[in-house]
Amino acid sequence: MGFESYVVVHNIAKRHNVGTLARSATAFGVSELILVGRRDFNSFGSHGSSAHLRFRHFHSLHDARHFLKEKDFDICGVEITENAMPVNQHPFNKSTAFLLGNEGTGLSAKECEICDFFVYIPQYGGGTASLNVTVAASIVLHHFAVWAGFGERCRDGNKFVVAERPVKQVRRNFCTETEDAIVEERKSRRENAVNGFFDENENNNSSSNLLDALFVDG
Amino acid sequence: MGFESYVVVHNIAKRHNVGTLARSATAFGVSELILVGRRDFNSFGSHGSSAHLRFRHFHSLHDARHFLKEKDFDICGVEITENAMPVNQHPFNKSTAFLLGNEGTGLSAKECEICDFFVYIPQYGGGTASLNVTVAASIVLHHFAVWAGFGERCRDGNKFVVAERPVKQVRRNFCTETEDAIVEERKSRRENAVNGFFDENENNNSSSNLLDALFVDG
Repeated sequence: MGFESYVVVHNIAKRHNVGTLARSATAFGVSELILVGRRDFNSFGSHGSSAHLRFRHFHSLHDARHFLKEKDFDICGVEITENAMPVNQHPFNKSTAFLLGNEGTGLSAKECEICDFFVYIPQYGGGTASLNVTVAASIVLHHFAVWAGFGERCRDGNKFVVAERPVKQVRRNFCTETEDAIVEERKSRRENAVNGFFDENENNNSSSNLLDALFVDG
Repeated sequence: MGFESYVVVHNIAKRHNVGTLARSATAFGVSELILVGRRDFNSFGSHGSSAHLRFRHFHSLHDARHFLKEKDFDICGVEITENAMPVNQHPFNKSTAFLLGNEGTGLSAKECEICDFFVYIPQYGGGTASLNVTVAASIVLHHFAVWAGFGERCRDGNKFVVAERPVKQVRRNFCTETEDAIVEERKSRRENAVNGFFDENENNNSSSNLLDALFVDG
């Protein structure tokens, strides 16, 4: 129960960006990363499942919107439009899917069409700066998490329990590894399999993770 | 009048990180990027001056702290310590220099010693995520800018006036290019020259920018 955040990316251009984006998404409690259109992301490694982030694919923006509306999600474009609200004002109402522009370009007219509203990140600098898409996404996802009151991750001493480079079996040591989490992980693994995101010829018991591959060049 | 933010990095490891960090810093109105210790940053191009971000170098953390205290800045470590405050609570009092850890590692004990207080970025995810240092810095700098009430950058239509890749002369088209801004830029250029950050054999009238080099692989 409570609110959820999803991330939607249309025709993602660079493998690298999906990796760093997924890394931030997991940190900020995003439940699902939806890729629309081009499926290049298959190339960045499919040797396992992600227990921490579901991946989903749609061929069109229209299909993605239909899915999200069935789930009663708002679709929020991250873009500086006439009516865009500063993200720090937390203009959120319910579970929200955030549609991100491709690196270097804003949202297209077609992309804007499926959005219910827009947020932007105020900038203050002297002019030579544009924000990296992962930086922009991270700031937006951070604000949504604060607004939604997501439960903060537990710490071990002075650190959040994080693995710098995910390695096999390390998940077993996480403090969130409750029975529920394991059930949830198996469900997520099955769903990802159904969505065709990784090679089911691999040993299902491997804890190697789709995100492992993403993080290599993160 | 008004508050300022600085960024302090000690023994920066990767050239790439300084570039993306500088990019976010300029977007969030940071006045100065202070590099302490190792000076590898000379290698990432020194063919011009930055009108938008001053660079400064100190050999030791102690020297950096002395400089900042003379200017009556707080020094805020971005680190999860026992007493660290969530950054979204805006625990700021005055102009602040943010000390960032190196990629992948937190602040060392020596680095923590020069800090007046600490902020951290709450995380909510399932455990495999750590934040990229530029992402972490960007979220902190964004919050400081909001707290400090920095003036928002003007827009051209639906866009902030930004240059995707800074190019020669493009600065002349910026809407902040007032007489004051030009005077400020010349001052900044002189200061950067004094600090030895770029090769003064170059034509001083070139608008090529230290950040140009940084942004190439951004």
